[in-house]
Amino acid sequence: MNLYHHKVQYYETDKMGITHHSNYVRWMEEARIDFLGQIGWPYDKLEEMGVISPVTGIDCKYKVSTTFADLITIEVKVESFNGVRLKLNYEMKKEDTVVCESSSEHCFLNKEGNIIKLKKEFPDLYEALAGL
Amino acid sequence: MNLYHHKVQYYETDKMGITHHSNYVRWMEEARIDFLGQIGWPYDKLEEMGVISPVTGIDCKYKVSTTFADLITIEVKVESFNGVRLKLNYEMKKEDTVVCESSSEHCFLNKEGNIIKLKKEFPDLYEALAGL
Amino acid sequence: MNLYHHKVQYYETDKMGITHHSNYVRWMEEARIDFLGQIGWPYDKLEEMGVISPVTGIDCKYKVSTTFADLITIEVKVESFNGVRLKLNYEMKKEDTVVCESSSEHCFLNKEGNIIKLKKEFPDLYEALAGL
Amino acid sequence: MNLYHHKVQYYETDKMGITHHSNYVRWMEEARIDFLGQIGWPYDKLEEMGVISPVTGIDCKYKVSTTFADLITIEVKVESFNGVRLKLNYEMKKEDTVVCESSSEHCFLNKEGNIIKLKKEFPDLYEALAGL
Repeated sequence: MNLYHHKVQYYETDKMGITHHSNYVRWMEEARIDFLGQIGWPYDKLEEMGVISPVTGIDCKYKVSTTFADLITIEVKVESFNGVRLKLNYEMKKEDTVVCESSSEHCFLNKEGNIIKLKKEFPDLYEALAGL
Repeated sequence: MNLYHHKVQYYETDKMGITHHSNYVRWMEEARIDFLGQIGWPYDKLEEMGVISPVTGIDCKYKVSTTFADLITIEVKVESFNGVRLKLNYEMKKEDTVVCESSSEHCFLNKEGNIIKLKKEFPDLYEALAGL
Repeated sequence: MNLYHHKVQYYETDKMGITHHSNYVRWMEEARIDFLGQIGWPYDKLEEMGVISPVTGIDCKYKVSTTFADLITIEVKVESFNGVRLKLNYEMKKEDTVVCESSSEHCFLNKEGNIIKLKKEFPDLYEALAGL
Repeated sequence: MNLYHHKVQYYETDKMGITHHSNYVRWMEEARIDFLGQIGWPYDKLEEMGVISPVTGIDCKYKVSTTFADLITIEVKVESFNGVRLKLNYEMKKEDTVVCESSSEHCFLNKEGNIIKLKKEFPDLYEALAGL
């Protein structure tokens, strides 16, 4: 799996001179979507198939501040997946320094807002996630 | 018409120590939606009625910088409206000082993406906007 | 303590039709700054005094989705404070429904980036937070 | 000069299902900073040298909507530069379709907030911009 890269933008900084903490949550989404693409399930295709995957929880521990023009690498890993709930972990680094450790939790809904059991309804996607 | 008020948030500043210029575009939207509510056409109701009003252009002149905790007042005025295209002007002030002058242009579409002629299809909305 | 109010803006929604989850993290900041103002320590004054309070961690549990034009009320409470680290809890509601439960952790630094012991250096601020 | 590339993020869309118009203003900044890097004047280095370049005006014409996962290319050109004021033009395309045409205006300030005459104080930067 390739690491995701994000270059900190000027508009992502705040008057403390550092990256505003809310942006790491957006980078998690960027990295997650890249991760889904790498395992063959681009999120735009999932939506076209009628699968919506809202975020049900996030957790971030900010270790070291970052700022404009820093290059951040993000490694995404599946922490747990039971066919209904998915938990992902993210390790964000600036060069060799861990700057943020975080996680996100997700469920899978159809367009009516009902929970999808992936194993039954989308077995290929189930296998792709369960195999990681 | 009441002025719209926006208090500058910390996350709206950047490492220059001032409000990032992209946020004024968002405040224009806040003030525009408030304005529509004041004339009796809340934007969420417009959308429920099947009217979508995308932004087709914006123009901002930044006069004086603002920063965290500043209270900004915004006055919205109709510059022109021909039943198909609407142009709004915004004057943003911090106390008595004009900090930004801007404008936005809009059209009106139905859910299929076709242009709506408001005078024919939504005469009440047409009258509300034409009367300003 | 007064509840903080936030009206969901159009630019805070995403193509799922709901509020993008990253915005709740920004509303936590809005509510936290309002809270500090209510206890007599506006954050802009803290910064002028040389006190910086970065976010060291956040945790959000999204219970019910919200969308454009919803009015959210936020209650902020001190969960723990030991003079060096502060943990705040946030309960966000739409009318009587809890939509998000979250927390944030903070430390206090001087302009050189060193940890401040509030009890010794800012005893009034220490008392204000410890008394809650 | 290389084109700048931006992939539309999920958090940049709104409930209309398209990219929120305020984000194009942020992409202009991304492309502008990339452009400065390509001509040998990365913006983080400019700031280290004590040069601040605030945005004094923007203008955007939205031609065609874009949405999540679209790949946007941005071409930046100097429209005018007189040593004190700089105006840049941006052409944004999705494949061969122009989706947005915009411009931004800038001045150059020192850390005290006074206007810098680039020709005298930073002749190399003056030459780099004037030669385009």
